[in-house]
Amino acid sequence: MTFEEWSASSRKSVDARLQTRFDDAWPPQFREATLYPLQTGGKRIRPLFSLAAMDTLGRPQSADCVSVAASVELIHTYSLVHDDMPCMDDDDERRGKPSVHKRFDEPAALLVGDALLTEAFRILTTTGLSPTTQVRLVAELANGAGHVGMIGGQAADIGMGGPVTEIDALMQLHNGKTGALIRTSVRMGAITAGATDAELSRLTAYGEAIGLAFQMADDILDKDEDAGDDGPPSYVKLIGEEETRRRARQLLDEALSICDTFSGARHLISLARFTVDRDY
Amino acid sequence: MTFEEWSASSRKSVDARLQTRFDDAWPPQFREATLYPLQTGGKRIRPLFSLAAMDTLGRPQSADCVSVAASVELIHTYSLVHDDMPCMDDDDERRGKPSVHKRFDEPAALLVGDALLTEAFRILTTTGLSPTTQVRLVAELANGAGHVGMIGGQAADIGMGGPVTEIDALMQLHNGKTGALIRTSVRMGAITAGATDAELSRLTAYGEAIGLAFQMADDILDKDEDAGDDGPPSYVKLIGEEETRRRARQLLDEALSICDTFSGARHLISLARFTVDRDY
Repeated sequence: MTFEEWSASSRKSVDARLQTRFDDAWPPQFREATLYPLQTGGKRIRPLFSLAAMDTLGRPQSADCVSVAASVELIHTYSLVHDDMPCMDDDDERRGKPSVHKRFDEPAALLVGDALLTEAFRILTTTGLSPTTQVRLVAELANGAGHVGMIGGQAADIGMGGPVTEIDALMQLHNGKTGALIRTSVRMGAITAGATDAELSRLTAYGEAIGLAFQMADDILDKDEDAGDDGPPSYVKLIGEEETRRRARQLLDEALSICDTFSGARHLISLARFTVDRDY
Repeated sequence: MTFEEWSASSRKSVDARLQTRFDDAWPPQFREATLYPLQTGGKRIRPLFSLAAMDTLGRPQSADCVSVAASVELIHTYSLVHDDMPCMDDDDERRGKPSVHKRFDEPAALLVGDALLTEAFRILTTTGLSPTTQVRLVAELANGAGHVGMIGGQAADIGMGGPVTEIDALMQLHNGKTGALIRTSVRMGAITAGATDAELSRLTAYGEAIGLAFQMADDILDKDEDAGDDGPPSYVKLIGEEETRRRARQLLDEALSICDTFSGARHLISLARFTVDRDY
């Protein structure tokens, strides 16, 4: 199976799983609102990282694997719904469609985000994985998504750590805001597949490298866009395009060399190239 | 130990536990913001329901018990932080102090709420309880706090189920908005204490009765206040004060008769009276 076939088929499985998670939501209009941001497309990169890590460790893709992958997408989607709200980025559109607070209203967007976040944990308790594994997954997700991970990075992003003027501070910010959930996605895949400590440690390093490089690649792609707000600078603005490219390339090489230590990391390799090597 | 001594001591233990849960938050100003809504007082009713259920089943109050109790308070507090935001109730004060979005700002309040919600699940994975028990607690909390429970009720409260004109619809709303987390608090205590299915089922019925009666008692206390918004009516407005009192009394009696089936439900009895029997 090519990477394209595998990712298309995996994406379809994750989407199908996400669709069923709010069947018991009420009132009906709220059910519709929870499903709306899950139906506006999206590349499902984070679930793919989970599933690729499982594949690398030889775990066949089961319904349980898909549930674990869906849980990281629920976290990612809730963060977009809250980020788009007027008090944050005030984005009227997401993926070419009205954002949740425009399609419904602000209170609905707030509650939809909260509901997706809560569901990310609930779905982890519905698998047939061992209780020990389920607890590890819940802890991993809470760490990656919470105040030591993604939310900490978002807090830095809204300026709660003061102005960002140094490359180390910018990397710490993105290591939280974007990197933490990518690293967690890879780690949750590894934990689900029963990784040894050594395997988990190598896959964590892969996730960390790609998680950091991800934002650099984004900033290179968007280098001609004016950020237009008073948030932190882009990598390109802070250290220049050439240095950003050099760092992204170095992180990608690091990740790819970790992949070489596994015999079947083909999808992790493709994902690394797909997410970082996007225009060079 | 009297109920007053027990509740004061339990409250102190829960507060101490909550204080330590954001030691690893960053940036420092965000750590301060996460702690702020946890330091503004509050009766800690929901943790007390958890601890009283454990006490009823003979479980001595350990550090693990306190962590479970703290997790329900994290959910309750996050819901208050988000509820106070301008797009929801737009409350500038909470317990006589500026609400989080006034003391910090709106983006901070949004992220603080998200962080408390996420931490509620993380803390459950830090106990020495068996993995099976931990998974049951995570599932229980996600159900009580999520779209089938509290958030569903909040969605009805903001009008996503249409205008509330019937008593059954109002009870369904409050059964979610307020009742679900109280029922879940009792159930999490029971699960932590290793309740049998029969004990869990009786304690669930207790939690459901008190969860519903709680809002009725609130509405009786606030009967002279003008709701002043276009939300759902109070019980008193919809069915009158006398009928509200009759229903609250009936639910309280139901809960107390369940307590009689246990030999040591003293704190559950006191809590039922404390939360429902407030002015009559």
